[in-house]
Amino acid sequence: MIPHATFPVERWRVRETALELDLLHEAESIFALANGHLGLRGNLDEGEPRGLSGTYLNGFYESYPLDYGERGYGFPEDGQVIVNVTDGKIIRLLVEDEPLDIHRGRLEHHERVLDLRTGVLERRLQWTSQADHTVRVRSRRLVSLDLRSVAAIAYEVEAVGQALRIALQSNLIASQPQATPSKDPRAAAALADVLESRLAIAHDLRVVLAHRTRRSDLMLAAGMDHMIEHDGTRYTRSQAEPDMGRVTIGVRLEPGQSLRVVKLLAYHWSSQQSVEWLRDQVDASLGIAVAEGFDGLANRQRELLDAYWAVADIEIEGDDEVQQALRFALFELLQATARAEARAIGAKGLTGNGYDGHAFWDTEMYVLPALTYTQPNLVRDALQWRHSILPLARERAAQLGLRGAAMPWRTIHGEECSSYWPAGTASMHVNAAVADAVRRYVLATGDDAFERDYGLELLAEAARLWASFGYHDRDGRFRIDGVTGPDEYSALVDNNAYTNLMAQSNLRAAVAAAERHREAAQRLGIRSAEIAAWRRAAEAVYVRYDEHLGVHSQDQDFTEHDRWDFERTTPEDYPLMLHYPYLQLYCRQVVKQADLVMAMFTRGDAFTAEEKRRNFDYYEQITVRDSSLSASIQAIVAAEVGYLQLAYDYLAEAAFMDLRDLTHNVRDGLHMASLGGALMAATCGFGGLRDYDQRLAFAPRLPRALQRLRFPVVFRGRRLAVEVQAEAATYRLGEQDEPLEIIHWGEDVALRAGQPERRKIPPAAELDPPRQPPGREPERAQRRLRIAAW
Amino acid sequence: MIPHATFPVERWRVRETALELDLLHEAESIFALANGHLGLRGNLDEGEPRGLSGTYLNGFYESYPLDYGERGYGFPEDGQVIVNVTDGKIIRLLVEDEPLDIHRGRLEHHERVLDLRTGVLERRLQWTSQADHTVRVRSRRLVSLDLRSVAAIAYEVEAVGQALRIALQSNLIASQPQATPSKDPRAAAALADVLESRLAIAHDLRVVLAHRTRRSDLMLAAGMDHMIEHDGTRYTRSQAEPDMGRVTIGVRLEPGQSLRVVKLLAYHWSSQQSVEWLRDQVDASLGIAVAEGFDGLANRQRELLDAYWAVADIEIEGDDEVQQALRFALFELLQATARAEARAIGAKGLTGNGYDGHAFWDTEMYVLPALTYTQPNLVRDALQWRHSILPLARERAAQLGLRGAAMPWRTIHGEECSSYWPAGTASMHVNAAVADAVRRYVLATGDDAFERDYGLELLAEAARLWASFGYHDRDGRFRIDGVTGPDEYSALVDNNAYTNLMAQSNLRAAVAAAERHREAAQRLGIRSAEIAAWRRAAEAVYVRYDEHLGVHSQDQDFTEHDRWDFERTTPEDYPLMLHYPYLQLYCRQVVKQADLVMAMFTRGDAFTAEEKRRNFDYYEQITVRDSSLSASIQAIVAAEVGYLQLAYDYLAEAAFMDLRDLTHNVRDGLHMASLGGALMAATCGFGGLRDYDQRLAFAPRLPRALQRLRFPVVFRGRRLAVEVQAEAATYRLGEQDEPLEIIHWGEDVALRAGQPERRKIPPAAELDPPRQPPGREPERAQRRLRIAAW
Repeated sequence: MIPHATFPVERWRVRETALELDLLHEAESIFALANGHLGLRGNLDEGEPRGLSGTYLNGFYESYPLDYGERGYGFPEDGQVIVNVTDGKIIRLLVEDEPLDIHRGRLEHHERVLDLRTGVLERRLQWTSQADHTVRVRSRRLVSLDLRSVAAIAYEVEAVGQALRIALQSNLIASQPQATPSKDPRAAAALADVLESRLAIAHDLRVVLAHRTRRSDLMLAAGMDHMIEHDGTRYTRSQAEPDMGRVTIGVRLEPGQSLRVVKLLAYHWSSQQSVEWLRDQVDASLGIAVAEGFDGLANRQRELLDAYWAVADIEIEGDDEVQQALRFALFELLQATARAEARAIGAKGLTGNGYDGHAFWDTEMYVLPALTYTQPNLVRDALQWRHSILPLARERAAQLGLRGAAMPWRTIHGEECSSYWPAGTASMHVNAAVADAVRRYVLATGDDAFERDYGLELLAEAARLWASFGYHDRDGRFRIDGVTGPDEYSALVDNNAYTNLMAQSNLRAAVAAAERHREAAQRLGIRSAEIAAWRRAAEAVYVRYDEHLGVHSQDQDFTEHDRWDFERTTPEDYPLMLHYPYLQLYCRQVVKQADLVMAMFTRGDAFTAEEKRRNFDYYEQITVRDSSLSASIQAIVAAEVGYLQLAYDYLAEAAFMDLRDLTHNVRDGLHMASLGGALMAATCGFGGLRDYDQRLAFAPRLPRALQRLRFPVVFRGRRLAVEVQAEAATYRLGEQDEPLEIIHWGEDVALRAGQPERRKIPPAAELDPPRQPPGREPERAQRRLRIAAW
Repeated sequence: MIPHATFPVERWRVRETALELDLLHEAESIFALANGHLGLRGNLDEGEPRGLSGTYLNGFYESYPLDYGERGYGFPEDGQVIVNVTDGKIIRLLVEDEPLDIHRGRLEHHERVLDLRTGVLERRLQWTSQADHTVRVRSRRLVSLDLRSVAAIAYEVEAVGQALRIALQSNLIASQPQATPSKDPRAAAALADVLESRLAIAHDLRVVLAHRTRRSDLMLAAGMDHMIEHDGTRYTRSQAEPDMGRVTIGVRLEPGQSLRVVKLLAYHWSSQQSVEWLRDQVDASLGIAVAEGFDGLANRQRELLDAYWAVADIEIEGDDEVQQALRFALFELLQATARAEARAIGAKGLTGNGYDGHAFWDTEMYVLPALTYTQPNLVRDALQWRHSILPLARERAAQLGLRGAAMPWRTIHGEECSSYWPAGTASMHVNAAVADAVRRYVLATGDDAFERDYGLELLAEAARLWASFGYHDRDGRFRIDGVTGPDEYSALVDNNAYTNLMAQSNLRAAVAAAERHREAAQRLGIRSAEIAAWRRAAEAVYVRYDEHLGVHSQDQDFTEHDRWDFERTTPEDYPLMLHYPYLQLYCRQVVKQADLVMAMFTRGDAFTAEEKRRNFDYYEQITVRDSSLSASIQAIVAAEVGYLQLAYDYLAEAAFMDLRDLTHNVRDGLHMASLGGALMAATCGFGGLRDYDQRLAFAPRLPRALQRLRFPVVFRGRRLAVEVQAEAATYRLGEQDEPLEIIHWGEDVALRAGQPERRKIPPAAELDPPRQPPGREPERAQRRLRIAAW
């Protein structure tokens, strides 16, 4: 848990007011900078102490053989893990022959600020050595949203009170050893000695190192260059060794005088190009970066962020803490995706090596939905990555004895890397997630060409998978047996409601797209008989309803199972998967994360309002939220069924997941899905945004504590602003926008530019929400309970 | 497939008439000698060529860390693998400076005979070197049933036609490198460099080597001594190196003259004793063996086997091939268990390293039932091993969050070693298997003291496991969810009928035993409330009946699943698990091995005759027998429901599994379960033996081809002989036996010594048996089909 005292609430910044060594690891994730292509963890400039040193390039991975005590047919042979590449963040400082080391001397002042509007991480410190020499340091760091290969650090050191001899070592280091691996399955595999040196060159103040991964055979070049501002004589020296480059700058500072060094970094990698080619690219990028200088880069960064906030910002009145967290989420989603450009978007973005840097369904179900209505181009990029791995997914489907394409459950490069198939290969809903993201993108943009050239194939290959894996039973019902839904505390179940309903919308979307693009369909070998089969399957999709309980069963047998013994489960037993075997979890009624409840959001059109309330009540009592993917979805559905305070608590939990480290593993990287989910909890929860149909529907309603919620929706070129207050919502199109029809609480509303429409919000009934399992109340509710008890 | 030509049918011997290098590996398993403590594979004396060199000591294993791509709570940390210990089988021969190597020169005659009555493996060969020197060699090998640590080889070499200088090297070799591991999950894990030398001593013609396993920390001493018969001068030399001992004997043989060397071997191991202690034991064992000499050991071997055959032999008239196979099975069961003495009995006995040398439920369900009515003492020993691992099983249950004891799915030492939990830990029926073996042993022997001191605890700890894992649903039914039954093509299912019914009899047996031994029950903390709960659970055990199909469902959902597409499955696709992912297998109606059909044998009292026929018909059509555990059970139930020819074909398949290598993996060792199953197919199948109740019941009936079946049943000290002919069966007690009541085809029969009772067998209805999936007919039926087609 990260305390408020150290990270105060501010609406546009994340600020650390003291350096807590206990939180070093966590702060590295929170202060990570990235642009979707290059990511630098928030390591201290001087490199140590450190939790996890991390510099990542999207898609740059090493592979390793997956070991199995007992191997089964179709188990993936190889794992993939994101590589901690050459580290260019390091600037070590020697003050009169003593290293600036916060373990020694006195750290008299420390502050780090991540400014969400400038995109710059600033650090200020004052330090006095054991020999009583004092320096003031200010460093600013950015990863450019403009130049995707470039990062920059402006480092200033000032002598305080007396003249000081200063030596600054700016390093570029490959293959730094890391800490030993954890047993937590959510942490990363540790591979030793991944990078093999191919080039090391220094001239002037520039060093370039090139390395190759030993097994995946990827080539990487990293370079640094420096600009020095200092009046007076100075000593400089550049070195290059296979795994280390260093530029040393020595000066004498008079009291109050500063040395300012701008360090520019550039990274390029490739699976095909030569080391010479990559080195040229690095030199070229460094050339451009030097020409821009730190200030040039920072100005451009600000411009790009201004444009982003103008279109994406979600404003909240009444809760600055949530406001801060939502802006942090918006910022981090941009950092994870901005320049990803048809590479996978990992569950941690580029902020850590958790989950080995793999991408999951999280991207399509939590990150892309939060971006679709403001940054559709980034969604398009992400879906093009999915399209690019279709050949691998087709191979995988064939290996599984299925038609179509089977998307990997977790991957970097596209191959299935999940070595525990009951919660990997069996989680076939990832295919429907991709289809849903395609459907939403096309709906939001009307990008017909994308649908024809990419979307149709993604939809159709997934439809083929469902058609070949599922089957019509003796009553004609279309069943999908032996899969794992979102809730990983059940596995290998029949007729998981979420999976079946998502497969249904996948099949329907494939039918519609194939009928819209007949030529493209023909090119893909989609015949009318196949379309008819998809339609027939979609119409017959089966979901079990438990008549006795009056609720939908999460799967065929779920509600028949024994209820988990929550009364005998202590707070220390959570997360359950670290304290109980799957043997026990799978056969009990206990839900790790929203599953049927998620279906009620993503396929809300398949449930009546009454069913939603009853189902929510039932599953809420057995859902333990041992996954960071849960709270946001619970927030959305709680808001819909009328539990506004509960929804608000869940929104807060999703939003604070990382900033307050609620899951105790932000050290491994940020939870992109929870961040995206928090944004959806605002727009789809309190904004009530739904997009099942061709028209957007809103059913906004605020919890008592909030006075106002304002969020943007970009829909087919229009810039709709939605403003929600307690009693009414106002919908406003952009000044040049074409008219648009939307739905407000079931009522058609025709919008025209310049004519904001204000509509009443029906009053909320006062409902008592269901209880969570003991000790599993939302985090804010637990805090309230503690305060009340005290 | 092993051809008849090389292995002719003989009623008391297994004979190889030519050395087929293709079958070397397989013949090593078939000609393995063992006594339950020490096992020597049938490697050639000269050590090479070899398939898999193997010398095993029951319980002597090495452990290794199990690796998981994704680890889960409760996944076993360590694997165990049987160690190929110091090899004392090797005797190399140099003929005039040319090694006897069957790859070179001419092998003019070769024969190996395993005599099932003497227990000696004899080899005869005549070989002429490339330089035209001819020798005749006869070697005889035995592993003593009398002295459990001792094996002996009598090796004779004769110069043919001319005088020859001969050098014989008798070796003792540790840590021989083996071939690389296979990807077949049924093969063994290969560990390199397991043994660390601790002692190597040679004096006179004796060498002793001691080694320690590096990780499991077990100590082993192996020794050899020699007796030489030769008239004339000879040269001898003994050497000892850390991993090699060698005694060299050089002589000159006149034409027709022989050198005879008797090599005596002794093995001792311990987890606690010192190397000095073990060395002393080896020296002592060698001393006794030398005193006995080969002939003394062989005589005693014959005596012990005579006694065995007198009580255990099953005679068949009308099929010498089956007769041979059943005797081979009886011999191998003895080899696997005779001196196991409270150690695990591995699935391969001590004939190979398949399945890593692990013991499974096979022992209790296939091996012990075949021994209980002739060798109850061996069954007692085996159950004492289970009792000895109760502390580990209790720990495992606690780790799983359960009460009682959870027996390992696979193990050598007692810890769970299955790294694929859906077909390991989830196969909880292993616990009921142990309980069933206890119940049967007590029934057969009336060994009240055993029940009190060992049996009750085994029954009760398993009952506790069921009581804590299962539960009463809202209708009061007792369900067991999320387990895997015998059929490993389904997994993690609810209410597997076999598991539930076996748990039911386990619970009932625990209730009965606890009530019979009230004091012992109190000592074990079994209170009357607990007994009442077991009784309540047993009474409410639920098994799903599919009303629509009119059959029992293998599990809650089995008959709802899609039927496997057998029509599109080619013969090369079998075994399916090597060509299809579990993802596909688990959710289809396809049965690897008898599961519901097995329940109809082991819990035949829970089904009506009509249900049995209908169920058998249904499951027969979807059972592919990809497990060697299946045919024997199908034979038994086929016989019961009236498909006598089919039963006969299945009996033959079970019986020939190894002698004809029907599963293509006898190379890794013999299938003890199939051998035991074949014996049960005779006694329980055509003998119709059942023991559900306190009295034995018989419902014998022969297939047309057989004229007579005779088998013994030792029951509470009586020696009953059952003789079945086409129209009647005769029951005969031993001369001194107390009276006994049995049941013949539902009729009570009172037996008295000296008064054989002959009873008519009701005529069989002519029934058309169901069809198997295409290409999965029993092996003999396939042969008939091929002949018919030709």
